[in-house]
Amino acid sequence: MTFAGTPKAIDLSHHLNKLSLSRVASPLKDIIKYMHEPGMISLAGGLPNPSLFPFGELRARVYAPETDLRSSEEHCSPIEFSIPKNASPSHKNTLSAALQYGSSYGSARLSSFIREFTSHVMTPGYSDFEILLHSGNTDAWNKVVNILCEFGDYILVEEHTYPSSQALWAPMGCKGVPIPIDKDGLIPEALELVLKNWDQTFPRIKKPHLLYLVPVGHNPTGATLTLERKKAIYKICVEYDIIICEDDPYYFLQFPPYVLQSQRTQEESGTAPSDIPVEHPNSSSELDGQAYVNSLIPTFLSLDVQGRVIRLDTFSKTLGPGNRLGYFVCNPLFAERILRATEVTTQAPSGLSQALIEELLISWGQEGYLRWLPGLRDSYTSRRDWMCDLIAKYFDLVPSPANIVDDVVAVQKGHGSTKDAVPYFSFSFPKGGMFAWIKLYLPSTSTYQNMKATSPSNENATAKWAEAFWMDLIKEKVLLTPGSYYTPIIGSGINERMPLEPDVIFFRLAFSFETREEMEVGIERMANVFERWWS
Amino acid sequence: MTFAGTPKAIDLSHHLNKLSLSRVASPLKDIIKYMHEPGMISLAGGLPNPSLFPFGELRARVYAPETDLRSSEEHCSPIEFSIPKNASPSHKNTLSAALQYGSSYGSARLSSFIREFTSHVMTPGYSDFEILLHSGNTDAWNKVVNILCEFGDYILVEEHTYPSSQALWAPMGCKGVPIPIDKDGLIPEALELVLKNWDQTFPRIKKPHLLYLVPVGHNPTGATLTLERKKAIYKICVEYDIIICEDDPYYFLQFPPYVLQSQRTQEESGTAPSDIPVEHPNSSSELDGQAYVNSLIPTFLSLDVQGRVIRLDTFSKTLGPGNRLGYFVCNPLFAERILRATEVTTQAPSGLSQALIEELLISWGQEGYLRWLPGLRDSYTSRRDWMCDLIAKYFDLVPSPANIVDDVVAVQKGHGSTKDAVPYFSFSFPKGGMFAWIKLYLPSTSTYQNMKATSPSNENATAKWAEAFWMDLIKEKVLLTPGSYYTPIIGSGINERMPLEPDVIFFRLAFSFETREEMEVGIERMANVFERWWS
Repeated sequence: MTFAGTPKAIDLSHHLNKLSLSRVASPLKDIIKYMHEPGMISLAGGLPNPSLFPFGELRARVYAPETDLRSSEEHCSPIEFSIPKNASPSHKNTLSAALQYGSSYGSARLSSFIREFTSHVMTPGYSDFEILLHSGNTDAWNKVVNILCEFGDYILVEEHTYPSSQALWAPMGCKGVPIPIDKDGLIPEALELVLKNWDQTFPRIKKPHLLYLVPVGHNPTGATLTLERKKAIYKICVEYDIIICEDDPYYFLQFPPYVLQSQRTQEESGTAPSDIPVEHPNSSSELDGQAYVNSLIPTFLSLDVQGRVIRLDTFSKTLGPGNRLGYFVCNPLFAERILRATEVTTQAPSGLSQALIEELLISWGQEGYLRWLPGLRDSYTSRRDWMCDLIAKYFDLVPSPANIVDDVVAVQKGHGSTKDAVPYFSFSFPKGGMFAWIKLYLPSTSTYQNMKATSPSNENATAKWAEAFWMDLIKEKVLLTPGSYYTPIIGSGINERMPLEPDVIFFRLAFSFETREEMEVGIERMANVFERWWS
Repeated sequence: MTFAGTPKAIDLSHHLNKLSLSRVASPLKDIIKYMHEPGMISLAGGLPNPSLFPFGELRARVYAPETDLRSSEEHCSPIEFSIPKNASPSHKNTLSAALQYGSSYGSARLSSFIREFTSHVMTPGYSDFEILLHSGNTDAWNKVVNILCEFGDYILVEEHTYPSSQALWAPMGCKGVPIPIDKDGLIPEALELVLKNWDQTFPRIKKPHLLYLVPVGHNPTGATLTLERKKAIYKICVEYDIIICEDDPYYFLQFPPYVLQSQRTQEESGTAPSDIPVEHPNSSSELDGQAYVNSLIPTFLSLDVQGRVIRLDTFSKTLGPGNRLGYFVCNPLFAERILRATEVTTQAPSGLSQALIEELLISWGQEGYLRWLPGLRDSYTSRRDWMCDLIAKYFDLVPSPANIVDDVVAVQKGHGSTKDAVPYFSFSFPKGGMFAWIKLYLPSTSTYQNMKATSPSNENATAKWAEAFWMDLIKEKVLLTPGSYYTPIIGSGINERMPLEPDVIFFRLAFSFETREEMEVGIERMANVFERWWS
């Protein structure tokens, strides 16, 4: 499909690695073109006979796209559909096909739905983009690295990066090049500096050609890249010939700015109890799908006029990770190489997952899916609000001083108006995703001062303090994720990490899973531990 | 679990490659142990909230294990089960869990079913074997190669080998070492010869340490290894320290010996039309599950007292390949390394596939599954019989001369009693799987003699003849798979293949998919082409 006015992808074949260039299509695939000739009797394929698959029918009860996700379960699932064994005029989707070997491209009907959706919502900047189903973004990233990277390559990553992504390439002897980030995501100037000075900083070392990032609701920091930054980063990547891997599971969970509960309840009716999700000005009930689409910060894909963005999209956060189903959007050359790798590894995502998601989406239609997504966004917005409200309840939040880039600083409850209130941590109100990220300032604790006095280095003291504090949180029965888990690997060997910043540590807090009540207990316990350690 | 009297796996860690030895567990996994502490509030996991997954309930209608697979669809699926959103006393299997991120081990309930089944049916020769779910044997083989092989390694393969298996390792610069096979599978003496003479034949080249084989209903040749050969091969592998990868999708499709239709109908009622499956003496209707188990040739796993067999088992041929679900049975060390690789790639098989197969198998129970399998075996036995009957109908079958190891030789219809009948092809009656494998003798055709006269080599003439003959079959509208697709790659580069044997070519015929009627049309067309080319 070509859109008038948009260019085709440029030739980026020089980015492919040796492994990928060596892959050839299975000779068995040659046979497929003859199989479909009219009148052909095929004794060639090795397909089991579908009449012998022991599933007769699958029925699903699914949510309506406009479901009020706060209502009870019975009211959620009024839509029913059936996937029968065999095709009929009313059933194109069949178990005979879902349970059979399928194309490595994935279901044509589902791909076509996704293509229409992507064209509309993302408006890719080049015309010949391809949609290729995959088995989840983790394996998709595996496939990207395995078509683009040689053993030992340097890869551009955010300075706090998703652990599974680097656990994939570190055993290949690859090394991360951490690029500073802040609450608005990766800092373009920092990226440019690294690339401009590469030959001086890393003499005789191959320049990186792949940037991995999570642009929306970043894991772990919750940061969301602004459009301006995305444009600047894309421009730099064009200049330095970098492929961007946009791992974007949280794209559809972009929130309106957080408003303090006190101000929110004044502005609105003022009667909503805190465990009822708050209607934000642009919540779905007031907007149609197009307004929701317009509210989303454009993707790297939509800025991409060359085909140098590999977008990893997934249904994990929108329809459930257990489906193990997502899709690449990328240029045809990369798609074809990924397809070759898929044929000899995963072959295809589960046919049952494909069939169920296909039927769900086709039942909903494009419009329905664009009602579902803002509803989901609203649910996670409420959860973001719960967590921010609770932090504001158990700590005092004060404006950040000039040297702190985060939105606010949390101090001991009741001391927010004290001029010399001691900072516990700073954080920014997440604009997307599932996580908040807090930065703790250790120097004002006596425990840290004692550790510094007896430690070989400040960094060592910081690490020791972090461990002791985390264990104390666990003793208090509240579990956070230590920020050190996200430290980039910068040397050969998984333990050679970017040096930790001394005097500060980080924790990731997820607001995606626990109930409002559990969250409150957790934040209260956390506040107790802070008070003890800072007293 | 340890069985009294069976040893534990020996230390085989020296077989692991650098990539695999470099993998470490994700730090996020450390958190899991704290998550399950009573009273813990976890803000650590990044799980989406299951109340927001849009599936309310899944219902399935499935076949009874004792289903007569020749009956019509409505009679096949009397069992119904439901997978509700949330757990209840009667429902352990839930959509909330199936659609959530799951353990890379796979469902504990399903694994436990499989462990019991494997212990009973395979009786592994060592005690500490592990069950690890995977996403189909193709990806499982990918994982085996990626824990055991370095780039450039030599791998022991059958002289006709499954193309996807080598398309995986060939781009890694690995090379196949073809071991001769015949109708009873891989020839142990040939394997031993290669290993004994390795240092003379391949001076200064690292000896192979991995043998890949399809022991039952071999793809493409249909051969099934005898127990004697399995024992001999295992002994050689112990002696030369070889890991055996037993890719065994057809294990449960082991057939009784083929009996010519004329003799069969005499022995039996004599009234069964040829499109009704024939009841074999040991067909399921007369036997219980244990008798079926006893009828199966033991696996390499059951002979394995050291843990050097990696068994790739799959539901693809028994419950449908679209499930993309199977399992490794292997030693704990290899299982742990495969698990580490799984965490950063596929993560887990589809939760929906796991949940549906789990519920199906638990509905059936161990006994039910052991009724399903012989029923399925009988269906494919009938299909094997259809194909052999049809070949016997459209060709004359004569006993093989001393220099041909196959069961029979096919000659022109009506010439079977002629002393000097010209051989078209020889083949063996398959004892398992989905394929027959025919070997064509070209010298008696004038076309081949002409090609030989004008070709640079006999091998070249053979390849040209094969191509022309195949295209003529396609023109006649019957599609077979050329045997050359299965030729091992023996050099760096996917086109450097084992030299083709001159004067003969092979085709693979699948009896798994087409109806009896289609099969007849196909075989008749094939016979017409043979007659033309041999006239």
